[in-house]
Amino acid sequence: MPDVREPHVLVLGGGFGGLWATRALASAPVRVTLVDRTNHHLFQPLLYQVATAGLSSPDIAAPLRHILRGQGNATVRLDEAVAVDVDARRVTLAHGTLDYDFLVVATGARHAYFGRDDWAANAPGLKTLDDALFIRRHLLEAFEIAERETDAEARAEWLNLVVIGGDPTDVELAGTLAEIARHTLPREFRHIDPRKANVHLVEAGPRVLPSMPESLSEKARAQLQRLGVEVHTGQAVTRIDERGVDLGDRRIAARTVLWAAGVAASPLGAQLGAERDRAGRVRVEPDLSLPGHPDVFVIGDLASVTQDGTPVPGVAPAAKQMGAYVAAAIRARLAGKAAPAFRYRDYGNLATIGRMAAVVDLRGLHLSGVVAWLFWLFAHVFFLIGFRNRIVVLSEWVWSYFTYQRSARILLGRSRDRSG
Amino acid sequence: MPDVREPHVLVLGGGFGGLWATRALASAPVRVTLVDRTNHHLFQPLLYQVATAGLSSPDIAAPLRHILRGQGNATVRLDEAVAVDVDARRVTLAHGTLDYDFLVVATGARHAYFGRDDWAANAPGLKTLDDALFIRRHLLEAFEIAERETDAEARAEWLNLVVIGGDPTDVELAGTLAEIARHTLPREFRHIDPRKANVHLVEAGPRVLPSMPESLSEKARAQLQRLGVEVHTGQAVTRIDERGVDLGDRRIAARTVLWAAGVAASPLGAQLGAERDRAGRVRVEPDLSLPGHPDVFVIGDLASVTQDGTPVPGVAPAAKQMGAYVAAAIRARLAGKAAPAFRYRDYGNLATIGRMAAVVDLRGLHLSGVVAWLFWLFAHVFFLIGFRNRIVVLSEWVWSYFTYQRSARILLGRSRDRSG
Repeated sequence: MPDVREPHVLVLGGGFGGLWATRALASAPVRVTLVDRTNHHLFQPLLYQVATAGLSSPDIAAPLRHILRGQGNATVRLDEAVAVDVDARRVTLAHGTLDYDFLVVATGARHAYFGRDDWAANAPGLKTLDDALFIRRHLLEAFEIAERETDAEARAEWLNLVVIGGDPTDVELAGTLAEIARHTLPREFRHIDPRKANVHLVEAGPRVLPSMPESLSEKARAQLQRLGVEVHTGQAVTRIDERGVDLGDRRIAARTVLWAAGVAASPLGAQLGAERDRAGRVRVEPDLSLPGHPDVFVIGDLASVTQDGTPVPGVAPAAKQMGAYVAAAIRARLAGKAAPAFRYRDYGNLATIGRMAAVVDLRGLHLSGVVAWLFWLFAHVFFLIGFRNRIVVLSEWVWSYFTYQRSARILLGRSRDRSG
Repeated sequence: MPDVREPHVLVLGGGFGGLWATRALASAPVRVTLVDRTNHHLFQPLLYQVATAGLSSPDIAAPLRHILRGQGNATVRLDEAVAVDVDARRVTLAHGTLDYDFLVVATGARHAYFGRDDWAANAPGLKTLDDALFIRRHLLEAFEIAERETDAEARAEWLNLVVIGGDPTDVELAGTLAEIARHTLPREFRHIDPRKANVHLVEAGPRVLPSMPESLSEKARAQLQRLGVEVHTGQAVTRIDERGVDLGDRRIAARTVLWAAGVAASPLGAQLGAERDRAGRVRVEPDLSLPGHPDVFVIGDLASVTQDGTPVPGVAPAAKQMGAYVAAAIRARLAGKAAPAFRYRDYGNLATIGRMAAVVDLRGLHLSGVVAWLFWLFAHVFFLIGFRNRIVVLSEWVWSYFTYQRSARILLGRSRDRSG
């Protein structure tokens, strides 16, 4: 049991930021409480594979409690922060309150509809496992409904799939959808030809993967097109309804629209009383602390950090580095020393597109095609938490590579099926 | 594409009965349409392992479409039968109608609360993958809530788990719960000792596993007790509410109550106009056809069949045998021959209790302990559909055996967590 006389570090959120902060405090003279509203740490970079039925939920998630079982100074609590009082140093949870000496807020971000929340119902987003299972059902059901639909036009609407956004997740989703339609499903239907499904990728900006060098954006677009994805860039969505998407004057009739375009920081940020950017991210000091509150740190997707004039991106490596940094800053503080400012080290940027297709930008070294794909594959397996998960995911991929099959094509939960 | 001039066999339900009937018609001069409201065939005997976080949903389920992809005369349709008109030979589905020449009704059974449907909210049953995921969340959350609960009495309520029923599924559930509490969770909590959780098994009849010989019931009871399960036989449940169960005068305070006691046949049975037994099962002719309607067959858990004075049990082998029989009966009919009456061959009965503990009754040969457990294990892996699922399940079991870990301890879906 943790020593109650030691300073109490309260960490909100068990994503990359919060979990890395907690683990880096293992040998520090503190007690740590990690609060999350789910019981698991999620490896978000592979979430799109759960959504597209390639992996099961437990393959990319591990119980926080199990990860931290050996860390004697850490307690995990399933709960949700509802209010923060930075003056009283107290957090109100859904099921109690906790006082802290140091607070690490790492509650992340959700997808955002840029003020068009009415789009959410027809264009589900992808941030949690429940989102992924919802999208999986959405997708698999589209083909099932098309199969029993007798009207040709209505059938075509069910076979049109639209992904909105041009970031790595969107590119990965669109590429995988095209593969499922072309390779996984064809022999299994009697009334439709899944190869005739049309996958559209819509990006408002001038190119896909805007965070990558332009040459890689071009390569990604070419690889997507080779897979059969229709790429629409420079076209903003003006309307989404149950039967399709408007891009200005142009209409894409589609029953399945997936959204991975915007991000909005966790609403907890608004409670901290600090300045926030347009996406709701909290502007922090160079040591990631809240202005005026050196005992409160904000990290990961919830933090707005600018370095050398450019914003630190909301990606897993940045969140992990912030987590580790904050743990070091707390240790330094307890030892009466000052911590140097946080520096983000950008090791590169990568996105997969499909079978043997990916783009990788390693600070100047640009890769694409098979080499990039192998790099992407091993990087993702390497960073998965847990020996077991690595083995399982790698086996699923090997299986899937040779058979074109996807192991998790199982409908769960409530149907969206109201037609007929 | 199936030949529309051939007789149309409509199969309702893709469980053991319906799927086996469909497959056995592969080379018959018919077209077959298999309708199910889910997209998968479920290996129900291992459903309790999904509920107890040992396996993932896709491990024990396979898309019907994928199983039947090579069977050219079979079409799979995701839909649900809502009405049957046996005179017009027409089935109304949620999304259309289908005419048939032969109808095979194999829509199975759900768990039943013996007229106490108000118990359902506090004692979830186990029949589908969604049920299993609901129970998994229910169970995992109980320990999480106990961990953050500060009142000792309230905490104890969260650590009491009750399973109602004495059939193989109940025994398997109770044994697994005891193992999770004693071996999987202990090191991971800081405020509770999961080993102090109490698992109760309640059976109204005089012994557990009533379908087995008495000596094996005794062995099962002893093995359960060794695992720490408190077995209450001869005690009927008189009340279930949010905080526990009444057994006559005795109260067990418990926040988690699981129900696998009764069965009620699918409501579709009521539409067939034939006599039904107390559980709603349809009484059929010796060739499993509906009295007065030789073109309609009822099989699996929905059929009430008596053989040599005893009812054919509602188990997977019986459903498979009925499915194969009906396919043969249809072939015979088309060839102008009469089919002999259906005969159920009982190859035995088995139930696992926990690690290296099981009971097996092979028509007189009784096994228990490690030998029975190994038999159970290989029998279940052998009968799983799909080479891939067999490998995956076997690997999960080996992993779990050596590590005591359960791979699917992931909370999904909505919480029941309203307290605090």
